[in-house]
Amino acid sequence: MTTAPLSPTARTTVTRGRNRMVEDRAELHRFLDEALVAHVGVVVGDHPIVLPTAFAVDLDGPDEGGSLYVHGSVAAGWLRQAVGATVCVTVTEVDGLVAARSAFNHSMNYRSAVVLGRARLVEDPAEREHALDLVVDHMVPGRSATLRPSTRKELAATAVLAVPLREASMKARAGGPVDEPEDVAAGVWGGVVPLRLTSSGPVAGEDSHDRVPHDVARRAASYAAE
Amino acid sequence: MTTAPLSPTARTTVTRGRNRMVEDRAELHRFLDEALVAHVGVVVGDHPIVLPTAFAVDLDGPDEGGSLYVHGSVAAGWLRQAVGATVCVTVTEVDGLVAARSAFNHSMNYRSAVVLGRARLVEDPAEREHALDLVVDHMVPGRSATLRPSTRKELAATAVLAVPLREASMKARAGGPVDEPEDVAAGVWGGVVPLRLTSSGPVAGEDSHDRVPHDVARRAASYAAE
Repeated sequence: MTTAPLSPTARTTVTRGRNRMVEDRAELHRFLDEALVAHVGVVVGDHPIVLPTAFAVDLDGPDEGGSLYVHGSVAAGWLRQAVGATVCVTVTEVDGLVAARSAFNHSMNYRSAVVLGRARLVEDPAEREHALDLVVDHMVPGRSATLRPSTRKELAATAVLAVPLREASMKARAGGPVDEPEDVAAGVWGGVVPLRLTSSGPVAGEDSHDRVPHDVARRAASYAAE
Repeated sequence: MTTAPLSPTARTTVTRGRNRMVEDRAELHRFLDEALVAHVGVVVGDHPIVLPTAFAVDLDGPDEGGSLYVHGSVAAGWLRQAVGATVCVTVTEVDGLVAARSAFNHSMNYRSAVVLGRARLVEDPAEREHALDLVVDHMVPGRSATLRPSTRKELAATAVLAVPLREASMKARAGGPVDEPEDVAAGVWGGVVPLRLTSSGPVAGEDSHDRVPHDVARRAASYAAE
């Protein structure tokens, strides 16, 4: 597991808004643990394609800096294009709308990580099963241990890609608007509409009994409104 | 304004999970109106870069199918790379965690739109100002009309790109898990943890008075917990 500070390469150096750059690798890890969706960018022919996907991180994975795993159907075109190529995995959570006194200073509060790396097709069966468990546990911590093992057919239908976490950068914005002094003096209101993902609680499927398991209940509680 | 149904090209045809494909262009428009962040994919050298950004849509914009606008600093490298190139703009909102009876059937509820098109640098001053107003109003509807006009310096610091909305596809998943009959019969719980962005209400900046304007109050109310 890498505990070195984030030291982006030229490709991942934050050039705009350097004051928003996060340099603590532990903060990147915490953020990737919390965020739900990754946007994976792959070059297909002469253009990029960006698709949302579930993901998981294994800091003890075999790739430099740890392994970021994404998975998809073996029939998915973007996944085949990605194998062996450099991909960009970007993870973003919105934390608020920043209503400034001028259009120019409007912004959002957010956290965002950008990971660039060569995508490796995970072929080792043990690593593949572990990665898929991690993806499930990323959604609902602890859940994979409560489920039956995946069948050979299910495993054969799923491709897993690993991207090294080494080449990564992170930006974050928090707090209120930063306005021009004359706009503040003019007495216009400025502030933030904080935003957070929340859940109204688990909903049992129509074909399910209603004794919500502890792992799911805990996960829903972690999204409870304040 | 285009009201034609979504008719993706080969590049945007949904090949995986066709049952999740949305074919109604009005639904795409509603979704883009509601979602807050776009992930823009640009090819830089031999690799893609994916960055989160605010955006707005003008269905009456000059591009085919309407115009999707993103903006950034004129100094941003990705933005310069994007001008004249085909970019991919992907917008995703997570609506829930789908806790199925097997790892394989775990999923998320979501809506996601993928727009592919040649990025045009918006040079006409009137279109540029209109696009920037739309980006502010996309965050807080009605707000741009309450703010002072942008200064020449502010406008000069901001680049605006337009992407035609014509070549777009949308996918959505909703509802409970879809499990194997034998897993349902085994009596394992299956269900959903619904997720929604919510706000605890506007927070005035430290340098601001606390009379929250109507537009901001309305926007925060649209994110009120149920």
